[in-house]
Amino acid sequence: MGTEFLKIKESEEAKEIISELYEKYYTPQSEEIDISDAYNRVIFEDIYSQIDFPPFDKALKDGFAIKSEDSFGASEEMPKTLEVIDFLEAGSITEKEVENGKAIEISTGAAMPKGADAVVMVEYCEKGENEVNILKSATPGLEVAKKGSDTEKGKLILKKGDVLTPGRIGVLLSQGFETVKVYKKPSVGVISSGNELINPGEELTYGKIYDVNGNMIKSDLTSAGAESKFLGIMKDDYDEVKTTVQNGLKECDVLICSGGTSAGLGDMIKHVIDELGEVHVHGISIQPGKPTIVGIIDDKFIIGLPGNPVSAIMIFDVFVKPIVAKLAGRSYEFEKKVIKGQLTKRIHSPVGRMQYQLVKIDGENIEPIFKDSGAIFSLSTADGYVKVPKSVELIDAGEEVEAYLFN
Amino acid sequence: MGTEFLKIKESEEAKEIISELYEKYYTPQSEEIDISDAYNRVIFEDIYSQIDFPPFDKALKDGFAIKSEDSFGASEEMPKTLEVIDFLEAGSITEKEVENGKAIEISTGAAMPKGADAVVMVEYCEKGENEVNILKSATPGLEVAKKGSDTEKGKLILKKGDVLTPGRIGVLLSQGFETVKVYKKPSVGVISSGNELINPGEELTYGKIYDVNGNMIKSDLTSAGAESKFLGIMKDDYDEVKTTVQNGLKECDVLICSGGTSAGLGDMIKHVIDELGEVHVHGISIQPGKPTIVGIIDDKFIIGLPGNPVSAIMIFDVFVKPIVAKLAGRSYEFEKKVIKGQLTKRIHSPVGRMQYQLVKIDGENIEPIFKDSGAIFSLSTADGYVKVPKSVELIDAGEEVEAYLFN
Repeated sequence: MGTEFLKIKESEEAKEIISELYEKYYTPQSEEIDISDAYNRVIFEDIYSQIDFPPFDKALKDGFAIKSEDSFGASEEMPKTLEVIDFLEAGSITEKEVENGKAIEISTGAAMPKGADAVVMVEYCEKGENEVNILKSATPGLEVAKKGSDTEKGKLILKKGDVLTPGRIGVLLSQGFETVKVYKKPSVGVISSGNELINPGEELTYGKIYDVNGNMIKSDLTSAGAESKFLGIMKDDYDEVKTTVQNGLKECDVLICSGGTSAGLGDMIKHVIDELGEVHVHGISIQPGKPTIVGIIDDKFIIGLPGNPVSAIMIFDVFVKPIVAKLAGRSYEFEKKVIKGQLTKRIHSPVGRMQYQLVKIDGENIEPIFKDSGAIFSLSTADGYVKVPKSVELIDAGEEVEAYLFN
Repeated sequence: MGTEFLKIKESEEAKEIISELYEKYYTPQSEEIDISDAYNRVIFEDIYSQIDFPPFDKALKDGFAIKSEDSFGASEEMPKTLEVIDFLEAGSITEKEVENGKAIEISTGAAMPKGADAVVMVEYCEKGENEVNILKSATPGLEVAKKGSDTEKGKLILKKGDVLTPGRIGVLLSQGFETVKVYKKPSVGVISSGNELINPGEELTYGKIYDVNGNMIKSDLTSAGAESKFLGIMKDDYDEVKTTVQNGLKECDVLICSGGTSAGLGDMIKHVIDELGEVHVHGISIQPGKPTIVGIIDDKFIIGLPGNPVSAIMIFDVFVKPIVAKLAGRSYEFEKKVIKGQLTKRIHSPVGRMQYQLVKIDGENIEPIFKDSGAIFSLSTADGYVKVPKSVELIDAGEEVEAYLFN
């Protein structure tokens, strides 16, 4: 009993190995989706405008389209009177041309009629039956958005990696895009393992516990931009583990197992990887979560997380989520989720192992959550974690620290 | 032409009216969903633990379960030797009892066997064939998580309004919940209106523009937690507007129209509401977005937003999104999205009207985006807006301001 860790790594070393394996085996894929489903997806390639916007000289206000020179000198006392020859609503066009002495009544959003170069707002006009008194002098271009003034055709409008906010979706819609090429969501499978695990709805007999990691990691994968599936619980049996892993790898880009890493099953996953592929990391010198496995089978990641839920989600967040997010086009978001604040209580840490301490953020206070690592309830209040380097034995209350946020 | 604003309101007054109408006509609804689909949903009622957790005294480490008194005084030089009577894996149980002089080998996560009160980690044991040398004295309870030590049955574990993060989902999973009662997503319909609007894929003839608001507002509703549908473009025709609004109200909790508010169509929506229900706000004294309508038909909100996309999304964000979010159980999130920073350029503002100025956030710099309100491309860079009160004519560069973030 007890696992022999043959390829134990320092935290940074493990990250590097995972990053190198990612570069070697993975290339983000794209898919073309309907613009109406594009919210919060990530743009896969630079997008250039395909039309001038606005696509025509456009009236910005309700009023009268005129030749601006006809209004020069106009005032409330000395209005200029013009003949109204048409009424132009948004979406309509007219064959008529505005000549000197003429005006066309116009709605916001309508295309400017030929001959006119300005719109006098309705507030500065007195309309009669067939004529209008212009009460204010207009400069050329007044209340007109010139064709292409917002953007010209062929201009870079959105960049690869931009997340599609409502505003950016609006920009694409204005250009008439029906679809948009986005990062395809990586397909990631999650498997829980352990003879002690049962599914919700099953009877809780003595010695059993409900599986947590399966659907918890699944939901965390969703937040990383993946299409995630919980593939179920596997028992501590070599053939079952091997078959489940092989089937999982057929349908997923990445496979994440958790559980049983200290005793039998951890070895079993390791042995299965040894048989079907290669183990690259076996054990990371961190607390919690030392028993972590990173392997490659059929050019795909297979990750073994600790069975303890708090350790599992922490290891997932630190080592696995960034690569899944990167495959989903989201690497950038994960670099900036750091908050600085003051530690409210002293943290003790084992020398020689990097420690990740769960914390709760309260304004500028960063409060460590001390519980043994089996305490699942700490997860309902934890906002993130603080890293304690392996050479540091304690960080005192009041010291400034950086907290890495979950999600 | 030109709309007569009969019920024009100040910004705060409009918010109050909307809030009162919300309280009068709306009650958040719940639905029971599978825990595996619960990521990012909002809990509808307080949740109490239904089992003790852990559900039994649990070994926290691999090692040997013993009566702690049998180890008192043990050291590397003076080990205590105990007979090993069984091996207990996680998920297994044994009928055997640990008596004085006996030990049971045990895996992390296994239920403690009867009679044992401590686990000595494998690192402090020397295992022989049928016996074990204990090299370190153990205190009662060592490496054991007592039944109910993490939480006791009947304890409040999650509160109404809590958003289901992966960690909180983990907490529910540990308790064996198969489903969870969450806020039902409000169903919100979006209709665009205007003769100038066309759908993507249609030919862009002179004077027409692609509809932006429909799918843009739809995606912003998604971010507010709604189930949103774009119901299409309606032409500037009284009967079409009336029928579209009536059909939309049948299938949605809230209906949002946009467009044509300055000229004919805005009046038309107002007239339709007058015929079918009641107009409560017609015009808000703000810039941009004065022509805004808030009405009630059949006890449901019908909102008329300006046609201009920048105005539409701003009005939506300030006045409509908070109530949709509240109906979705998300009010809290929308109160805290405020960032303080230094204005990089002077903002001029019309006196007598509250102004919402689009801004871009760059660290602690808040940079106003100056473009006429038709400039859809400003939305691709805008992070939020700064409010300029109606009595303020300018805010100078360098002044500290608060920016309200779009999602």
